[in-house]
Amino acid sequence: MAIWDDVVPLSDREKYGKYTKLANIGMGRKPAVVVVDMTESFIDDRYSTGCGELARDAVRATGKLLDHARKLNVPRIFATWDPGLLPEEIGFWKCQRPQPVTMAVKSNLPDPLSLPSELGRQDNEPVLLRGKPSAFFGTNLAGTLTYYGTDTVIVAGISTSGCVRATVIDAFSLNYRVIVPEECVADRVIVPHKVNLFDMQMKYADVLPLDQVIALLEVNAPATPSK
Amino acid sequence: MAIWDDVVPLSDREKYGKYTKLANIGMGRKPAVVVVDMTESFIDDRYSTGCGELARDAVRATGKLLDHARKLNVPRIFATWDPGLLPEEIGFWKCQRPQPVTMAVKSNLPDPLSLPSELGRQDNEPVLLRGKPSAFFGTNLAGTLTYYGTDTVIVAGISTSGCVRATVIDAFSLNYRVIVPEECVADRVIVPHKVNLFDMQMKYADVLPLDQVIALLEVNAPATPSK
Amino acid sequence: MAIWDDVVPLSDREKYGKYTKLANIGMGRKPAVVVVDMTESFIDDRYSTGCGELARDAVRATGKLLDHARKLNVPRIFATWDPGLLPEEIGFWKCQRPQPVTMAVKSNLPDPLSLPSELGRQDNEPVLLRGKPSAFFGTNLAGTLTYYGTDTVIVAGISTSGCVRATVIDAFSLNYRVIVPEECVADRVIVPHKVNLFDMQMKYADVLPLDQVIALLEVNAPATPSK
Amino acid sequence: MAIWDDVVPLSDREKYGKYTKLANIGMGRKPAVVVVDMTESFIDDRYSTGCGELARDAVRATGKLLDHARKLNVPRIFATWDPGLLPEEIGFWKCQRPQPVTMAVKSNLPDPLSLPSELGRQDNEPVLLRGKPSAFFGTNLAGTLTYYGTDTVIVAGISTSGCVRATVIDAFSLNYRVIVPEECVADRVIVPHKVNLFDMQMKYADVLPLDQVIALLEVNAPATPSK
Repeated sequence: MAIWDDVVPLSDREKYGKYTKLANIGMGRKPAVVVVDMTESFIDDRYSTGCGELARDAVRATGKLLDHARKLNVPRIFATWDPGLLPEEIGFWKCQRPQPVTMAVKSNLPDPLSLPSELGRQDNEPVLLRGKPSAFFGTNLAGTLTYYGTDTVIVAGISTSGCVRATVIDAFSLNYRVIVPEECVADRVIVPHKVNLFDMQMKYADVLPLDQVIALLEVNAPATPSK
Repeated sequence: MAIWDDVVPLSDREKYGKYTKLANIGMGRKPAVVVVDMTESFIDDRYSTGCGELARDAVRATGKLLDHARKLNVPRIFATWDPGLLPEEIGFWKCQRPQPVTMAVKSNLPDPLSLPSELGRQDNEPVLLRGKPSAFFGTNLAGTLTYYGTDTVIVAGISTSGCVRATVIDAFSLNYRVIVPEECVADRVIVPHKVNLFDMQMKYADVLPLDQVIALLEVNAPATPSK
Repeated sequence: MAIWDDVVPLSDREKYGKYTKLANIGMGRKPAVVVVDMTESFIDDRYSTGCGELARDAVRATGKLLDHARKLNVPRIFATWDPGLLPEEIGFWKCQRPQPVTMAVKSNLPDPLSLPSELGRQDNEPVLLRGKPSAFFGTNLAGTLTYYGTDTVIVAGISTSGCVRATVIDAFSLNYRVIVPEECVADRVIVPHKVNLFDMQMKYADVLPLDQVIALLEVNAPATPSK
Repeated sequence: MAIWDDVVPLSDREKYGKYTKLANIGMGRKPAVVVVDMTESFIDDRYSTGCGELARDAVRATGKLLDHARKLNVPRIFATWDPGLLPEEIGFWKCQRPQPVTMAVKSNLPDPLSLPSELGRQDNEPVLLRGKPSAFFGTNLAGTLTYYGTDTVIVAGISTSGCVRATVIDAFSLNYRVIVPEECVADRVIVPHKVNLFDMQMKYADVLPLDQVIALLEVNAPATPSK
């Protein structure tokens, strides 16, 4: 049973499967992992944008994914918000900026842009700053992937219905194979989380259990340095 | 009551509204209308990708929107699929290509790429061909909007959870104000249709009733030619 | 006589003018000024990449242009190098990185990324960091210009044959009117400086004396704030 | 002696070589050939934009390059002008459109967009239509190269100072290794042809004799199909 089955009715699900079989895309030989906005402002629910326990689970799962990627020399890239943007760069976001949910919690909050230690980010792993949902927009992500020779983008991060989805659409549009490890993404809102996973699986990406992604990495990824 | 209220539970909806008020973005003084994939292959449900009666309703509503836009010299742009792409340009679409749902209907089908007559497309209205979800990707749409001096993109078309959503994300990312007239978009799948409208309203765009969009056009759009 | 006339022979120049008249594009009503890489590492010739006296002249001319732009509420945007990029983001630059031309000068050098005081950059004027020649590449410049409602991009900066030219091509490709004030650009190499001005004038932009650009600004630019 | 030595003086050339050695970038293991605007309107000098005998030489050289690429399963992609664009898509080109140089020649002219037979274009070789100088702008070229797994872009075509240079800048900015085979590019104007080759060699690409490019292909390119 898929995670979206209690939300997307059979009549909708059948629409995609009725006339042709929906096969998975599969992983290529040069995967890379892109982790979007897995920063405290989207994790810690003392921030208005935090996803709380669901995000902590996703952080742990992503830490595990990154450990395997490091062992296999699969490139890892992080994308986070650029805190220095002016209003004319930010544009017309409707979402609130991250803020403490109460004044009381304010003094104990972690840096909103810090990456949790479970991710184990290393100095040679790029952190791309940006101001739009997709990790590709207004960044050198496409060129960085070209440099690595990437053919498959594994997308983890927060939130499923926001920056993960936008990054998946762009990776797909640039003709990468796209994989979303289900446990490595999180959202504050449950129904959009599930429906966006459904949308991505039906259109642009393989939404897979983390264990299966790791098994694919072991088989497909180079044992030798990717560069 | 919003169209998504029977699908997105109150607990999810409150997440967006709890800490700050979610105001609409509003229309600027130089809107343009972008109509995505409102072609027979996404309308006529004798095609596997057709949305049937819901799409016909959206076509009629979009025809009405376009009539007002023409009267007010608001630019209109269409985006449709490029039928001439090779596999290396198409990439890894999971969705099936449009096909007749049965052999029996095959001989009576309209051209899958034709725009229905209700849209009244005129020769001086650009039709951009592309192979990716967003009408901006791999096209001159951004430059065309620059030429018009556009500050607001009104997105109509099919499907809500596919090309409409991708186009909205890109328009938003390029700092346009974005408006989605609710009646002018359609999808084959009902729950994703509603949830994607919810996502767009919460993050990137104003999802508004068509009548309200037309009223805004009458007030904001130039009476003189936009160029 | 044009600045390139001693380098580009008449036989070449006639090729462009032989069959049709080459008219100027003209300024629109919503210009913006983009200043590319006018930082000490490209100015001070104790840096290997510095252009020396020619750059100082261009700085003074650009300062004058910016003063007029500020007075007329014409938006100003700066683009400089991002010092924090990793090798996989930088790619395959052949140019040397800025470095002291001798060890002896090292201790007295200004910060390579600092903007000279003559430019008078103010806090509300965006500085876009990037790692590629064009100020549009991997940045939010296009969106920032959309936010301003820009129809004309005035490009100043260093070097003419590098980042100025790349920025001009992208601005042109996005359907902005492009203007290059001749005194506001500089290069270390003289013949490429002149030939690139020729190329841009023939293809993509109006290369004009600064006084003429300022006169056009006085006539065309809004007296009221552009936003 | 380099082709630009009679135009770019020693004092300019020394600027690039004075402080650091300028090494070549080299070819990767997954090259692809991109041929820009090698169509009759840019070749046949009965068109106002035609380069005449110089272009015919470049066509023959490019035909030879393509033969080797086909033999080695190195992907080949063509980019040509899109004849169907409306003014708002075309923007502010200063260059004249291709036109017969005299009325007398009009009736005998080849289709301006046809690729000469020496190039031997085959049905499985994509032809990307576009309206801007760079073959990447408003096309799926980046995605097509991702699909091929390309790490090196070999750029041929017309004109050196126009579409070749713009394509080279974009390929470089996307972190491809870029190679320009000197005999495979042409221009109507001689000094800009030479100076643009100099600029590209100094900054973004390896400008090499065709024989050397072919030798590199034999060594580096896959003997097995690139996909």
